[in-house]
Amino acid sequence: MLNLPKDMESISVKLNQTLMPNQIQRLQQQIEFMLEIDKLKHILRRTILTDRSREENSAEHSWHIAMAAFLFSEYAQDQEIDLYRVIKMMLVHDLVEIDAGDTYCYDDQSRQDQARREQAAAERIFKILPTDQSRSFRALWDEFENRDTPESKYANALDRFQPFLQNYFTKGQIWRKNNITRRQVMDRMQPVFDGAPLLWNLVNLFIDDAVEKKYLKG
Amino acid sequence: MLNLPKDMESISVKLNQTLMPNQIQRLQQQIEFMLEIDKLKHILRRTILTDRSREENSAEHSWHIAMAAFLFSEYAQDQEIDLYRVIKMMLVHDLVEIDAGDTYCYDDQSRQDQARREQAAAERIFKILPTDQSRSFRALWDEFENRDTPESKYANALDRFQPFLQNYFTKGQIWRKNNITRRQVMDRMQPVFDGAPLLWNLVNLFIDDAVEKKYLKG
Repeated sequence: MLNLPKDMESISVKLNQTLMPNQIQRLQQQIEFMLEIDKLKHILRRTILTDRSREENSAEHSWHIAMAAFLFSEYAQDQEIDLYRVIKMMLVHDLVEIDAGDTYCYDDQSRQDQARREQAAAERIFKILPTDQSRSFRALWDEFENRDTPESKYANALDRFQPFLQNYFTKGQIWRKNNITRRQVMDRMQPVFDGAPLLWNLVNLFIDDAVEKKYLKG
Repeated sequence: MLNLPKDMESISVKLNQTLMPNQIQRLQQQIEFMLEIDKLKHILRRTILTDRSREENSAEHSWHIAMAAFLFSEYAQDQEIDLYRVIKMMLVHDLVEIDAGDTYCYDDQSRQDQARREQAAAERIFKILPTDQSRSFRALWDEFENRDTPESKYANALDRFQPFLQNYFTKGQIWRKNNITRRQVMDRMQPVFDGAPLLWNLVNLFIDDAVEKKYLKG
């Protein structure tokens, strides 16, 4: 659809001649990346918007959890975390879905090869960037996935908490459709316990209530 | 649609009794805000996605420019800026559109009362938050709007640059539809000059090329 090299050819020549010698390849890679990541807006998740009009996409979700990161920062397990890195992780964390798609967290079959698909996607997508940025973006994604730093624990907590809220406040429409149980949601919410324990208390009460209201199977 | 106080009533009682005394009202306000800002996903802009399938919404746009903020940070006019604050500004900057809608930047008529509509929206939306957060979110929005700090200048630069790229790489479909001229786009891109001068050079070349290719009127 896009034809970046062709579109930018005459422009590149002029830029090279007059403005940013040696910068042109770098800038071209950055712009290609900007256009590539636009595709995240097409990746639909298994979460619906609060008015239940449609599914949420992964770009919207990434924005929403980044907002959540600074909205709920007082509940982070570790109060010394670097929130800037948390937010960068969140902005980047779903980019692999451009190739790998969104994997429904309760779909055990498609979760089997999720890691392989996402690794391949990370290889391709982050390679579009200049080397230094390719490395730093990839490091953010790896950190998010590994969940072994206070920052990534908090980031993962909100990555689970935001769709949980949307599920609860849409009366469990997607949970009910997929026959999801209390146990499945409890397991899925474990990162909230690790990264934001006070929110975990709230999640527990919401789950009790959701079972009572039949949004979730007991 | 949502009925937050009712849904949370029994939960609030339990939380108050056992877990977070005095915290409950604060947490309730924060969750109400999380649900309220979900509406930004319905605000459609006059920019189309790069595959031209549909219009972009303001939540996706906010995510995309936050990515751009750290992708293009080397081009910021002031290299000492606080990028964390830049990104927070970007995440927040369009929330007023939940009430005020997206105002097309070349629609002089609806721009006349844009400020009034957006001020009223800011009043309502940020007031949902606990007082301290209400103030800090509002301060971020004000800073973005006022464009008088290095951070807000850089943030505004990318807020203009990202849709510019999408307009150019969709062969000016929206520009052509609205008979947009070179002069209008040059004026609109002024913040790129202020906040990221190297990108302004690129914008200039793209505009020349866009006029040549008849994406824009000369």
